[in-house]
Amino acid sequence: MKAAEKTQEYKNSHIYRLRHSLAHIMAQAVLQIRPDAKLGFGPPVDNGFYYDFDFGDSPISDSDFKDIEKRMKKIVKQKQVFEASQKSLDETLQLLEETNQEYKIEYAKELVETGKAEGGQLGFYVNGPFIDMCEGPHLEDTGKVPKACFKLDKIAGSYWRGDEKRPMLTRIYALAFENVDELKDYIQRRELAKKREHRKLGAELDLFVIDDEVGVGLPMWLPNGTIIRDELEKWAHEVEFKAGYKRVSTPCITRSNLYHRSGHLPYYTEGMFPPMVIDDHDEYYLRPMNCPHHHKLYMSRPRSYRDLPIRLAEYGDVYRYEKHGSLAGILRVRAMSMNDAHIYCEQDQVKEEFTKVMQMYRFYYDHLRLGNFRVRLSLHDKDSEKFVDSEEEWVESENIVREVLRENNIDFDEEVGEAAFYGPKVDIQLSNVMGREETVSTCQLDFVMPERFDLEYTDRNGESQRPFILHRAPLSTHERMIAFLIELYGGAFPTWMSPVQVLIIPVNETVHEYAKQIESRLFDNMLRVETDLSGDTFNKKIRRGVTRKIPNIWIIGNNEMEEQAITWRRYCVKDQVKLNIDKACANLIRWRDERIMDNFDDIVIDE
Amino acid sequence: MKAAEKTQEYKNSHIYRLRHSLAHIMAQAVLQIRPDAKLGFGPPVDNGFYYDFDFGDSPISDSDFKDIEKRMKKIVKQKQVFEASQKSLDETLQLLEETNQEYKIEYAKELVETGKAEGGQLGFYVNGPFIDMCEGPHLEDTGKVPKACFKLDKIAGSYWRGDEKRPMLTRIYALAFENVDELKDYIQRRELAKKREHRKLGAELDLFVIDDEVGVGLPMWLPNGTIIRDELEKWAHEVEFKAGYKRVSTPCITRSNLYHRSGHLPYYTEGMFPPMVIDDHDEYYLRPMNCPHHHKLYMSRPRSYRDLPIRLAEYGDVYRYEKHGSLAGILRVRAMSMNDAHIYCEQDQVKEEFTKVMQMYRFYYDHLRLGNFRVRLSLHDKDSEKFVDSEEEWVESENIVREVLRENNIDFDEEVGEAAFYGPKVDIQLSNVMGREETVSTCQLDFVMPERFDLEYTDRNGESQRPFILHRAPLSTHERMIAFLIELYGGAFPTWMSPVQVLIIPVNETVHEYAKQIESRLFDNMLRVETDLSGDTFNKKIRRGVTRKIPNIWIIGNNEMEEQAITWRRYCVKDQVKLNIDKACANLIRWRDERIMDNFDDIVIDE
Repeated sequence: MKAAEKTQEYKNSHIYRLRHSLAHIMAQAVLQIRPDAKLGFGPPVDNGFYYDFDFGDSPISDSDFKDIEKRMKKIVKQKQVFEASQKSLDETLQLLEETNQEYKIEYAKELVETGKAEGGQLGFYVNGPFIDMCEGPHLEDTGKVPKACFKLDKIAGSYWRGDEKRPMLTRIYALAFENVDELKDYIQRRELAKKREHRKLGAELDLFVIDDEVGVGLPMWLPNGTIIRDELEKWAHEVEFKAGYKRVSTPCITRSNLYHRSGHLPYYTEGMFPPMVIDDHDEYYLRPMNCPHHHKLYMSRPRSYRDLPIRLAEYGDVYRYEKHGSLAGILRVRAMSMNDAHIYCEQDQVKEEFTKVMQMYRFYYDHLRLGNFRVRLSLHDKDSEKFVDSEEEWVESENIVREVLRENNIDFDEEVGEAAFYGPKVDIQLSNVMGREETVSTCQLDFVMPERFDLEYTDRNGESQRPFILHRAPLSTHERMIAFLIELYGGAFPTWMSPVQVLIIPVNETVHEYAKQIESRLFDNMLRVETDLSGDTFNKKIRRGVTRKIPNIWIIGNNEMEEQAITWRRYCVKDQVKLNIDKACANLIRWRDERIMDNFDDIVIDE
Repeated sequence: MKAAEKTQEYKNSHIYRLRHSLAHIMAQAVLQIRPDAKLGFGPPVDNGFYYDFDFGDSPISDSDFKDIEKRMKKIVKQKQVFEASQKSLDETLQLLEETNQEYKIEYAKELVETGKAEGGQLGFYVNGPFIDMCEGPHLEDTGKVPKACFKLDKIAGSYWRGDEKRPMLTRIYALAFENVDELKDYIQRRELAKKREHRKLGAELDLFVIDDEVGVGLPMWLPNGTIIRDELEKWAHEVEFKAGYKRVSTPCITRSNLYHRSGHLPYYTEGMFPPMVIDDHDEYYLRPMNCPHHHKLYMSRPRSYRDLPIRLAEYGDVYRYEKHGSLAGILRVRAMSMNDAHIYCEQDQVKEEFTKVMQMYRFYYDHLRLGNFRVRLSLHDKDSEKFVDSEEEWVESENIVREVLRENNIDFDEEVGEAAFYGPKVDIQLSNVMGREETVSTCQLDFVMPERFDLEYTDRNGESQRPFILHRAPLSTHERMIAFLIELYGGAFPTWMSPVQVLIIPVNETVHEYAKQIESRLFDNMLRVETDLSGDTFNKKIRRGVTRKIPNIWIIGNNEMEEQAITWRRYCVKDQVKLNIDKACANLIRWRDERIMDNFDDIVIDE
């Protein structure tokens, strides 16, 4: 289904009509208490709707919310029928001038001038005393609004038409869902999400900082965050070694030549930092993607069918120019480190390689408990000029990818027009705790770059052939993946990824020496351990460990010292276990080495 | 000793006078066969001397070397006395015009005009029929040249005054040493060096490529080279973990603000890439050093004396603008990855921290067998404006560093005027196989940046204090360190660093299955292993392994299969050992995990 069709489907949906109707109901209620208000736009949004008002010098505040909600409920009870009508521009202007709706007047004129008003007629909807220029659709009448399904949410400033040179309007946001349960559920999830929000937890757990003097969108990773990056990268290194990948390392800049060849220039210019000119005339760019560098490495040696598949992997740093306004914590940044690889293979190896890549995705996602994802097969649109014109190759490669997904029993949606310009791709869409979906990683089948880069190999018959390329990045970028993991885990990472793996708490000074011995033993085993030797109370020490979401607290008292043991308290687990120190160490090392997800599973401590 | 004094000492040395005299002798010999030649400059250089000639349209070639050398020997036998004299500019011009020496005329005028000729007088040296404008010094007479101590080396083009708009002259290089043995030794070492030259071996062993389309000075690491980088970094990670360092990760770019604060702008502008302007007016720079980013991380949290020392480590990518002409393989590049760290500590911790850093240097250098280094204590010059004006702090911090070196029994030279602008430093000077010395890494004591960055911590009394900073990078950059290691090891890396750790060679097809079993076993243990299943002869397979400098070849025949054994052939070791497969694997894993330097030591295989 194409994006435009999807939008139309959404517009016809019940939830859209409900939210849209509520926007009119809210506007009517607001006009009851502020007849002077001028209306801007009032559309449905993901979680409800909003309406923009110009209140002149005395805007309303959220202390008015109760009153407005009360009036809205009254309007619902009145079962006002929504009636559509069409008016000419003259009629429209006359009507809007009577009510002094200057913003609507401007918009009506624009619609007619730009030919967007069909037949020069403008749509209107009336319900009770309220009339609004609007294309609909709406519910039949206000009485169809379910009980307690909406709630006014917040007030924000918003420029008319998003233009900072135009007047600032007051935007009232409201939540609205199909019924009261869905609304409550959403509010609850949003509360949780606020607690788990990656920027908030990132600061509380000392994971990263973004500093204005260094630059927006350029996260700097503190030691705790760097540990999580390093653990992910080490894991990827092992998984890729076993899957026959070879790591490479390439610089983050290149001469412009390379991007003219790849097509990034001029097609991707907007997503790139501007060039640096050196040596009198040479333009150098920060790279937005690693692919061209890897293609150059492939080209640097003659290749034979015996060498294929060649799988070049790099946790590569890339830099993309994102607009200031679209940056968000570490979820959307300007500098990122990507779990990238390019697989060069023969045509008849494509399916097997693609399958292996999808299996690797599943392995990673299962292990990390990233269950809440959707797989999207992104196809070309033969009516669009955004895609390379080679219908036969498109159909063939789309079939390959579709078959791979089916054979692996992977559920997926198809979306026309979402492919890369050089080939179809599988997008992994992850939903965060708020249910908002983002593309986290893609796997692409590329039949275009081999031509552009003149990539070759010698086949069994001694003839020169073009390889196919798969682009893949299952662990996404460190930045985006860790943003998701922080929220998914609520900051409580499994032992293997945790910045501090064990906190040792001695209950009195007599056992300090024993506590330090245990600390040394763990440290010598490359475990990340801290001992709280402060003079604080036992409870305060425990609280501090829990606040820091340390997965394991080892409590040491006189008994423990005598028995050469520790008492093991797991994060958010009530039962404590007293355990011999050798066994305790062995457990911890095994959890680390096997990358046990002890933040999810009921872990059985080996006694 | 200051650099100027050193230069003077060298000029007075015997080897300088010998080489300088030989330059005159060679010029005399060249003029005998080509009286039309016009002379340029003819100075001593590190390994001998050269002289530049303008031969008009018909330059000489190296086929003339024998003739020239014969004539030089004759001049030596003549014991021509070197006599100094002074001439006025008029006398000089008259003399040079007679012999049509236009280059010398230009230079004589310049010396007088710029006041470089003392009292307007120009120095000359005569020996036999040859006269040259020259400040000396020389030997007493040509007879003092030792027998067979020189050899004409090569011809190269060279612009007059290095200016590409001036005429191209012919430069004849010659080697010259104190005696025939030193000359022979040098030639032998140079032959070896050519074989070990890192660019040559880098290509032969598939370690890295530098591609003009990507850019000069921007090495791209192939899988084999990336393994060496990764092994070094993994090692550093472990060593630093045990030494209490915390890894961080920061972006390679920053807003210009940060460098105005640090002083890199404007003082280091020439060594940096030009800025990129985004968001209308913000200048962003590729970073030439990691320090300012680390200082920002230090500043991102309030710090107490309890937290110090804080040791922030990063294998950080930095970009420096080096002139095209000074780039050399991976030894001098524009993109590099640095084994960097910054230690923030209290004043009374400086000595201990500096000591620990010097011990870490020694540990790394000893382990890698980088024995051929010199330690230089680089001091400020109180007469120079290149250094922060704070005499008391300079003396104090220089004393600290000097004491640390002495207490650790480290031999060192002192050099005035070589400090960083913000503090004294210890430079590790490594000599390559040709004896050429380069600074590989430095450890610096910094009392300036804490002020500039307003770095603070709260001391025992609750008062705010400035920390001191140590900057250190014992493993240098990957690029420079690996260039040295390639040459030092002649490309034969120890097992733990080797791209391929074991090559398995089955002697016939019967044992292919057994060979593959062993391969799987090693691979499952994360060892880098290959099996040569080609149809080539046994000897060819062995030769291929040796050419690739693979440290371990395991030979598998019928006997080996029956006994569940392998025959172990070490790189460049004659004796082979037959060994049970379990023991063989255990040996290999131990060598890897203990990072045994089996390319140096006579390794005892545990039987």
